[in-house]
Amino acid sequence: MTKDWKSKLHEVIYEADTPAGKLFDVVLLVLILASIVLVMLESVEEFALAHGEFLNIAEWVITILFTLEYFARIISIRKPSQYIFSFYGIIDFLSTIPKYLSLFIIGSQSLVALRALRLMRVFRILKLARFIGESNNIMRALKASRVKIGVFIMFILILCTILGSVMYLIESEEGSGFTSIPRSIYWAIVTLTTVGYGDIAPHTALGQFIASIIMIMGYGIIAVPTGIVTAELATMDKDDVHLNTQSCPNCSAEGHRDDAEFCFVCGESLHQKETE
Amino acid sequence: MTKDWKSKLHEVIYEADTPAGKLFDVVLLVLILASIVLVMLESVEEFALAHGEFLNIAEWVITILFTLEYFARIISIRKPSQYIFSFYGIIDFLSTIPKYLSLFIIGSQSLVALRALRLMRVFRILKLARFIGESNNIMRALKASRVKIGVFIMFILILCTILGSVMYLIESEEGSGFTSIPRSIYWAIVTLTTVGYGDIAPHTALGQFIASIIMIMGYGIIAVPTGIVTAELATMDKDDVHLNTQSCPNCSAEGHRDDAEFCFVCGESLHQKETE
Amino acid sequence: MTKDWKSKLHEVIYEADTPAGKLFDVVLLVLILASIVLVMLESVEEFALAHGEFLNIAEWVITILFTLEYFARIISIRKPSQYIFSFYGIIDFLSTIPKYLSLFIIGSQSLVALRALRLMRVFRILKLARFIGESNNIMRALKASRVKIGVFIMFILILCTILGSVMYLIESEEGSGFTSIPRSIYWAIVTLTTVGYGDIAPHTALGQFIASIIMIMGYGIIAVPTGIVTAELATMDKDDVHLNTQSCPNCSAEGHRDDAEFCFVCGESLHQKETE
Amino acid sequence: MTKDWKSKLHEVIYEADTPAGKLFDVVLLVLILASIVLVMLESVEEFALAHGEFLNIAEWVITILFTLEYFARIISIRKPSQYIFSFYGIIDFLSTIPKYLSLFIIGSQSLVALRALRLMRVFRILKLARFIGESNNIMRALKASRVKIGVFIMFILILCTILGSVMYLIESEEGSGFTSIPRSIYWAIVTLTTVGYGDIAPHTALGQFIASIIMIMGYGIIAVPTGIVTAELATMDKDDVHLNTQSCPNCSAEGHRDDAEFCFVCGESLHQKETE
Repeated sequence: MTKDWKSKLHEVIYEADTPAGKLFDVVLLVLILASIVLVMLESVEEFALAHGEFLNIAEWVITILFTLEYFARIISIRKPSQYIFSFYGIIDFLSTIPKYLSLFIIGSQSLVALRALRLMRVFRILKLARFIGESNNIMRALKASRVKIGVFIMFILILCTILGSVMYLIESEEGSGFTSIPRSIYWAIVTLTTVGYGDIAPHTALGQFIASIIMIMGYGIIAVPTGIVTAELATMDKDDVHLNTQSCPNCSAEGHRDDAEFCFVCGESLHQKETE
Repeated sequence: MTKDWKSKLHEVIYEADTPAGKLFDVVLLVLILASIVLVMLESVEEFALAHGEFLNIAEWVITILFTLEYFARIISIRKPSQYIFSFYGIIDFLSTIPKYLSLFIIGSQSLVALRALRLMRVFRILKLARFIGESNNIMRALKASRVKIGVFIMFILILCTILGSVMYLIESEEGSGFTSIPRSIYWAIVTLTTVGYGDIAPHTALGQFIASIIMIMGYGIIAVPTGIVTAELATMDKDDVHLNTQSCPNCSAEGHRDDAEFCFVCGESLHQKETE
Repeated sequence: MTKDWKSKLHEVIYEADTPAGKLFDVVLLVLILASIVLVMLESVEEFALAHGEFLNIAEWVITILFTLEYFARIISIRKPSQYIFSFYGIIDFLSTIPKYLSLFIIGSQSLVALRALRLMRVFRILKLARFIGESNNIMRALKASRVKIGVFIMFILILCTILGSVMYLIESEEGSGFTSIPRSIYWAIVTLTTVGYGDIAPHTALGQFIASIIMIMGYGIIAVPTGIVTAELATMDKDDVHLNTQSCPNCSAEGHRDDAEFCFVCGESLHQKETE
Repeated sequence: MTKDWKSKLHEVIYEADTPAGKLFDVVLLVLILASIVLVMLESVEEFALAHGEFLNIAEWVITILFTLEYFARIISIRKPSQYIFSFYGIIDFLSTIPKYLSLFIIGSQSLVALRALRLMRVFRILKLARFIGESNNIMRALKASRVKIGVFIMFILILCTILGSVMYLIESEEGSGFTSIPRSIYWAIVTLTTVGYGDIAPHTALGQFIASIIMIMGYGIIAVPTGIVTAELATMDKDDVHLNTQSCPNCSAEGHRDDAEFCFVCGESLHQKETE
């Protein structure tokens, strides 16, 4: 009987196929967004000074709600450790704990520790990732091409190191911001990726000539990651099966096919209401 | 007899297959461009002061012509409500009315209301969209991949929120512009999308290191939307049918095939001259 | 006999299959590059003051050589008008004449006219385009997708007009550079294309919010032209025939297949040495 | 007997299939990264002044280790000249020699020579390229499309030369940084590649109008290299064979197939331990 109650809670929290499950998701979504807005507003000095009291209360309300959600998730799953040490379990914990810790750090502690703690609440936004779903094609394409992209980034870094060093040699005497090799490499990355802040920019004719070469290189090799992901996505599109939002009550695995009867990871039945 | 006249007007205004219809389109195109140029010139202070009289008269001439077009469109269509509440009907109304309203707001009203009203005339440029046509492949590809692109944008926003917050933690004490989390997120978006204004830029070594990571990420993940649209466009190109510019005299649906005899939305005959 | 001489000259100048033709091309290439460097150096004030005499002589030498090339091209072709009024004929004329005209404008004439004249010599760089060849796949892909790209650019311009106007409404009172609608549209283009100079940048929170939306849009819709050209290029690659650098001695048509015996435009034999 | 020892050393140094070979690679990787970090730190003035002694000693340790590696590579290969004059052989030599040369240049020599020498040590990062491997698909795609990319870059340069010259004509009198044609071309490249530093930016309305055109062009033609590489990569993916990290003990050729028994370049047996 208790189990049945837990099983229903599991369906509401971990799945989005039932009306209750959908409602839970919407409420959670709104809460996450509200909490992110709160954290942001808190960092705007004028607002924090004027509405400090309101921010504190609102933050406590949201923290308590997230605490309830955290325990509900632990209770409703069969093996709590599987949730607690999962990616989302850690995120849920890390983004809820700071407010409680802030009770103990008030006073003489350093400002940086407090700031870092407050920051952790921003990780709540990662809870949104639950709604995107892991079965997403783009993520799979990125995962499938991660080796190629890794090689590509390594190549970019080697290029930027050499180009940055050359620019340091040319421009370091000119007072144009190339004061050390790391800074010059930073500039090379800013330029190659076509960001171009302009806080550091070459002044000499030779420096500008080399900068031009870097820009055209950057403009050209942006094609490489695009080509990789496009080719990968084109392959992905062909073998696409419809997956749903169910999650296994036993091992929490997601990405089950619509016609799945049993979990593809642990073999547990996905429809337990009738059996129990 | 009257109906025949309306039917002809419909053909001239809503279609571009006859010489009269083409002429109407060209005149309309010129008028729209002229009116946009007028609105722009009005915002250039020196010009507005020197040629205020001319701008006012020209604006009235164009407004009256657009008013005539608006009523002609209402008269020539069978069910006027279908045009009035369509996207283009609302655009036509909103971009024509401001000049008339300005007659009543002269004097003590706030400058902002007047500015906002004047701005609405810029929406006339949306009338240009009529010439592009909805049957366009690119639009269809964008529509078909809107879920994927939505997920991608959500992913970008989550990333920028976290990265912006981290940068706020690192740089907020340095006087380099990271004064609040929203501003830091703004900076993260400016950097990740490779825009790079340079109004806010990291000063610390750690900040520049993280900025470099964001840039390389942005440089890499620009591949994702490209991959999505390319894959979608490649599929689109295969099943391409030739559509023409006719629009149904009954329901205004567009995108009829060249060999269509009846409207694919309401079943009305597309060639009414002979029958009536 | 004279004809045979002309025919040989034609082969040297217009084709690159014989050793003499290749040598002519290399000499021409070096001359063009040298002349471009000269024009550039002339614009660098310090250099122009120090080496004015050298620049003048070098420019005359190059101008006379290009004049000889121009007349050689006219003489060696059967129908001179075909060359004179072709794209390259006009470029050759426009880039050679300024030096001669400068003889007559010395003195009281306006500086701007002189500057514009000098500028025309830069068009010599277009002579380089001859070496790229029209039969290039990329050019064909761009040509094939020019309608789609035109629609895309029109879409960008409509978007930038509206976004620029909205930003003008929001930021014009803030002293942040949005002083008129055209300037705001310029900013919108700078932002949407991810160039991001930073000379104009939003100061208000609302302005920065809208700017963020524009950036993410720009980051996303860059995918559209890429998708178009990629799809077009993929189609192109399939039906690729090998073309050579021969040009018809009668009508100057280029892009003949390697196994072509007669011009595909006018039917003239491409191998005239034996017949005459 | 000696040969057997050399053969084992060859396997450790040039291949990564045995545990010893993998360990060697990891140690080398760490050494390269450490040495790059050292060179970078040396360029940061505050650090160099505070820890000059430490930097000098660490640099000597690394230099001696790389010297040992250099001689080990020469000894273990059958034809040392093949390694010495290979790309990596030259890199290994150039990045090791500067520290020894610095012994002789101390004193009255010019600072620039010393700087340039120190810079050469950065080339050690190219040693990392060994770990990427030449058999990489991306490199092959880039190599296969190098002619097209060359044509594309030539096209970009011609465009930037003309656009830069036009901007010089328009803006040179405005004090907006367009002081010479080369600088204007530099600006055109900065703009077309969407880098956009903002150190040079047009002030006149006409200049901003042309700048807008350049930006939209740049935004559009970025599609071209992407299209080229994507098309090339799509073709590559189809005919992919598995290659391993073995290198021929005779000619050092890499990229052997997993099932290869003999070097595909010189025909030498790849498995020599048993035969000798």
